[in-house]
Amino acid sequence: MAEEAGFCFGVRRAVEAIEGVLSEGGTLWSIGMPIHNPQEVARLRARGLNVTKSANEIPEGARVLIRAHGESKAVTEDLDARKMRLTDATCPFVRRAQERAEELSSQGYAVVLLGDARHPEIRAVMGYARGPVDVVASAQDTERLPKRPRVALISQTTQREDLLAAVAAALVPRAGELHVCNTVCRATLNRQDAVRRLAGKVDGLVLIGGRNSANTAKLRDIAEAGGMDVLWIETSEELTREWFGEKDQIGVAAGASTPQWLITEICSKIARM
Amino acid sequence: MAEEAGFCFGVRRAVEAIEGVLSEGGTLWSIGMPIHNPQEVARLRARGLNVTKSANEIPEGARVLIRAHGESKAVTEDLDARKMRLTDATCPFVRRAQERAEELSSQGYAVVLLGDARHPEIRAVMGYARGPVDVVASAQDTERLPKRPRVALISQTTQREDLLAAVAAALVPRAGELHVCNTVCRATLNRQDAVRRLAGKVDGLVLIGGRNSANTAKLRDIAEAGGMDVLWIETSEELTREWFGEKDQIGVAAGASTPQWLITEICSKIARM
Repeated sequence: MAEEAGFCFGVRRAVEAIEGVLSEGGTLWSIGMPIHNPQEVARLRARGLNVTKSANEIPEGARVLIRAHGESKAVTEDLDARKMRLTDATCPFVRRAQERAEELSSQGYAVVLLGDARHPEIRAVMGYARGPVDVVASAQDTERLPKRPRVALISQTTQREDLLAAVAAALVPRAGELHVCNTVCRATLNRQDAVRRLAGKVDGLVLIGGRNSANTAKLRDIAEAGGMDVLWIETSEELTREWFGEKDQIGVAAGASTPQWLITEICSKIARM
Repeated sequence: MAEEAGFCFGVRRAVEAIEGVLSEGGTLWSIGMPIHNPQEVARLRARGLNVTKSANEIPEGARVLIRAHGESKAVTEDLDARKMRLTDATCPFVRRAQERAEELSSQGYAVVLLGDARHPEIRAVMGYARGPVDVVASAQDTERLPKRPRVALISQTTQREDLLAAVAAALVPRAGELHVCNTVCRATLNRQDAVRRLAGKVDGLVLIGGRNSANTAKLRDIAEAGGMDVLWIETSEELTREWFGEKDQIGVAAGASTPQWLITEICSKIARM
C-alpha cells in the first residue's frame, strides 16, 4: 500500500460538510460532481445529495454546495443574488490559489495558470483574475505568450512540482518580474512521493481513482515513468486475473478523491484473487 | 565583428561622468577600478583619476565616484557622513537590482542573488537587502538553501538568462512564493546573442575584455559552447600568429567595458597580420 493514499484534507472536509447537511435532513445541491469519484458521489446521492449540471435548475433559496474545487467569483455572486444558502467546501489550498490570482492580477500581474483549462479548479481560479489569464499545460505552451513586465504563475493544486519548475524556467525570459506561487498542495506531493517510493519494489500498481480525477492521472504518469505496469480502476469489477498474471508484488495507490471504503473493498478482492 | 560589442550604456555613462569631472580640472577618486578594463582605467588615470583600494585613503570632502557596479548602502552612507561629494555613476540597471533587493527584503522575502559573491556589483546589491541574503552561482548551489515561505531571486546584470531560468526552476520547490526579478540587462543579452550568431560563421573568435570582466567571461563560455576557438585578450600584444594558423574567418567580440579605441587598435593589428 502506498504510504499516503485516498482522501486528502480538502476532499474529506467537503464530504464531511455534505454529510453534515444531509444528516440534519436538509436538501443540498451540487453544481457538477462534488468530488471526482463516481462511486463516492453515488453513495452521497443515495443519501439525498442533488447533483445538477446547471445552477439554473436549482430552486431559489435552496442550500448549495461550493465543492472542493471551488467556483468562480461570478458563479458565487450569482448564487448569492438568487438568495441561495451556500455551504462553502472550497479546499483551503484552492482558496489560496484563488486569492493569489485576485491579489496579483489587481497589482497588474498577467496571470498564467498551470493546469487543465477544462478542470473546474482552474475555471474557478480563472474567475478570480482581474486581468489577462492564460492557461498552460507544459513549458512548451508558454512559447505563444508575449513578453510582459509582470507575470504571476499559479499552479493547479494537483500538478507536479517539477512541471511547475519547468514552466517557471520557460517564463523567466518572458517576464520582467515573475511571481511564482507554489500552490501544489502537500497532499498531492505526498501521494506522488509515495508512488515514487514503490518503484523497484512492486511488479505492478493498482491505482484506484475516478477517470476524471486530475491528481490520479498524475499518479499514473509518475508510476509509469518509474517503470510500473499500472492498472487504473474505479471499482473492483475492473480487476482481471490476466493483469495479475505472474506478478509477485503488487502495489496499491489511490487518488485524493478515492474514499477509504472503496480502497478497502478493492484490497480485499485483490487478496481473495 | 559581433553586431554588438564594447561599451554598454552603463559603462559609457560612467566614463562620460568621469571625463566630465576631469575636463573641468577637478579631482576625482574611485574606490577600486571604476570599470573592469585595465587599459581604459590606465587612460583615465593618466587624465587625473585617482584610484584607491580603500575609502579611508580619500581626504574628507573630496569628490568620489560611485562606479557603474554601484556601492552598498553602507559605503554610500559612510561617504556621505564624511562629507564626500558623490558622482553617482551606478548603472541604472544595477540600481534597479539594488532597489528590488531593498523593497522585496523589506516585504519579508529572503533574497537569493545569482552571481559571483566577490563581484562588486553583487556585493553592492547584497548591501541593500534588509534580511537574509544568499549568493548562488548555479542551480546546484540552491540545494543548501532551506525551504522558505517567500524568496526573491535577483540576478547580477551580466548573468546568462538561461542560468537564471535554471536557478528559478531549482528554487520552485524551496519557496512557497518565488519572485524572480529578471535583472539581466539588455546590453548583456544583445552581446551574448551577437556571439551566438557568429557560431558556424567563423573559425575562431578574438574576444577583447578585461580579465576581471564578468560579462566577458560569459561571452567566452557562450563562444566555446558554440564550438569556437577563443582567444581572450586585453591588448594587441597578446595576438599571436600561432593562434591564427590556418584559420580563414575570424570573429571579433568585446565585453561591455571594452572601449572602442582598444577594439579599433586590435582590429587594425589583426588586419595587418
